[in-house]
Amino acid sequence: MHFVLVHGGWHTGEGWRSVVNKLERMGHRAFAPTLVGHGHDVDKHGITHAVSRQVVVDLFERENLHDTVLVGHSYGGSVIQKVAEICAERISRLVFYNAFVLEDGQCLFDENPPHYRDLATQLCAASPDDTFLLPFDICREAFFNSVDRDTASELWHRYFSPQPAQPFRDKLDLKRFYSLDIPRSYLNCTEDIALPPGPEYGWHPRLSQRLGLYRLVQMPGDHESLLTSPELLAQKLVEAGRK
Amino acid sequence: MHFVLVHGGWHTGEGWRSVVNKLERMGHRAFAPTLVGHGHDVDKHGITHAVSRQVVVDLFERENLHDTVLVGHSYGGSVIQKVAEICAERISRLVFYNAFVLEDGQCLFDENPPHYRDLATQLCAASPDDTFLLPFDICREAFFNSVDRDTASELWHRYFSPQPAQPFRDKLDLKRFYSLDIPRSYLNCTEDIALPPGPEYGWHPRLSQRLGLYRLVQMPGDHESLLTSPELLAQKLVEAGRK
Amino acid sequence: MHFVLVHGGWHTGEGWRSVVNKLERMGHRAFAPTLVGHGHDVDKHGITHAVSRQVVVDLFERENLHDTVLVGHSYGGSVIQKVAEICAERISRLVFYNAFVLEDGQCLFDENPPHYRDLATQLCAASPDDTFLLPFDICREAFFNSVDRDTASELWHRYFSPQPAQPFRDKLDLKRFYSLDIPRSYLNCTEDIALPPGPEYGWHPRLSQRLGLYRLVQMPGDHESLLTSPELLAQKLVEAGRK
Repeated sequence: MHFVLVHGGWHTGEGWRSVVNKLERMGHRAFAPTLVGHGHDVDKHGITHAVSRQVVVDLFERENLHDTVLVGHSYGGSVIQKVAEICAERISRLVFYNAFVLEDGQCLFDENPPHYRDLATQLCAASPDDTFLLPFDICREAFFNSVDRDTASELWHRYFSPQPAQPFRDKLDLKRFYSLDIPRSYLNCTEDIALPPGPEYGWHPRLSQRLGLYRLVQMPGDHESLLTSPELLAQKLVEAGRK
Repeated sequence: MHFVLVHGGWHTGEGWRSVVNKLERMGHRAFAPTLVGHGHDVDKHGITHAVSRQVVVDLFERENLHDTVLVGHSYGGSVIQKVAEICAERISRLVFYNAFVLEDGQCLFDENPPHYRDLATQLCAASPDDTFLLPFDICREAFFNSVDRDTASELWHRYFSPQPAQPFRDKLDLKRFYSLDIPRSYLNCTEDIALPPGPEYGWHPRLSQRLGLYRLVQMPGDHESLLTSPELLAQKLVEAGRK
Repeated sequence: MHFVLVHGGWHTGEGWRSVVNKLERMGHRAFAPTLVGHGHDVDKHGITHAVSRQVVVDLFERENLHDTVLVGHSYGGSVIQKVAEICAERISRLVFYNAFVLEDGQCLFDENPPHYRDLATQLCAASPDDTFLLPFDICREAFFNSVDRDTASELWHRYFSPQPAQPFRDKLDLKRFYSLDIPRSYLNCTEDIALPPGPEYGWHPRLSQRLGLYRLVQMPGDHESLLTSPELLAQKLVEAGRK
């Protein structure tokens, strides 16, 4: 199987490294591009959702990928929705891994609880380049809840960097996405509380049900299971991504 | 322990074979009758809910069963609701295994989402005998989501056959059922998405809560766990069915 | 790590014994006080929420505890809410383990379904000292659903005694609690049906979300997992309680 793995906010493709290694040991091939404007030592001015995601479209074309499983994590869900509109015939299945599934005309902030939006607004205003970094103390509780504090701290410092805010504000035209008939899966980690669980903001089944007919795969794990449980995640990505 | 296992739509008693074998190896006794009008090479004209379920009542009487755990899967939930009204004193516990628990006066289609009902209507109209078979591509995603496509295909072709529609349309008088005080359990497979998860159509807790005081047992698994995870299911049926 | 473990209704500190032993074998220290008015052969007249919980405050002061994880189970959740108001600077983290998280001005009965409240009212009226004991047949289904009947019976007879009702009726002033910034976790056993699952009465995410930013930890288990799964529970209390 061929995978393209699209990371979420604050991350880069580096975060998938252990997952990619495991997938390769299982005999698969996996690409993990870094969205434009993500990472340390990168100019983050003027990054939009369209600018950020172009690297994924380019990857599909440069590598001439076909019959490929396109995975989006968290913010990456909104990315694969738009990439699927362009690369539909190259994609065998979309996998939304605790990922946003936006409705036509929405932006990512529309699906965040108000206290996250307000915090983002404050942090962006205080930044030189309209970016924000979710504080460690919040991530430790809501993103890294399955591991100890030292592990959480090491992973957060290594893999998190300020996120350009504009891609979270861009309203996406998703009419074409909702006309596609690419098979799709939702992979849900049962302890993921990056979005508050429940009918108002939770990942599943609130966002998954927007996919219409979809395959559900679940595993124990938190929002950062790509870092905290990469071996199990790789197995579940295969279960979610296979025909 | 003695079990009577009532299958769901599109199935026959054959689907329980691995579960029955496991239960017997654990020292229990299990019957898995085929509802009337189910299976290949069977006349399916004129089958109603009452006609279909009579075989279960007959089994209780013919075998003179007492102190028996009566299990219903999926559509079989509505069957055991009606059988319990007649055989109450023979039943030690009802086990609803990802099963419909209908309210008084409802039919099974009342608890299905509109797109399933519409699909059923179309397929029935195109059939010679008012039956319908849920297409493989839907079952592969929503019923067999825990296994690979080849396994799903083999199981679907072997165990699925057209379902008479009238039993899904028959409104059931369940006043007596709701006056019974037979102990009851709900066995929920946590990846069962045959009904769309969530407050509107999901199995649990939406349908389970209609049982009043009930015992909850859960396991990982999809809607076809009787085929895809029969050993674990047998253990969980014991946990759900014991005193 | 230091733990103070606060039991729920009908229980005493004795119920934590296996959990305490496991925590100690893991190198931690744990106290499990018995709330006033709980247990066999105890005068239960005139017990209020304030009277009942004072023993926990006294323990913190007598042992001069600091940097301590304060755990509340079930009714004990409302106890640790009030204790936290007094002992805030001694507590490193609050752990609500399938516990009530009351809103300001609520009493525990406000969060119970009507049939539980009505049953409590009847049983209290028939008691000499305004106490009630939830009948075994209810506990066997809704509290001990993961074990067999003999185990449930032995544990219920050994650990359950009549509960003073007034602490469940006392409306609690929790304004100070909701101004505290002590870190908090919610530990949820996924088969706990002591409160009916779902959006109206369920433990999680209905009550957990009142904690604001919190850490979620989950495990398989029923409401009495402190008795039915103490070794796993001890591990999960460490995951929930650590920094």
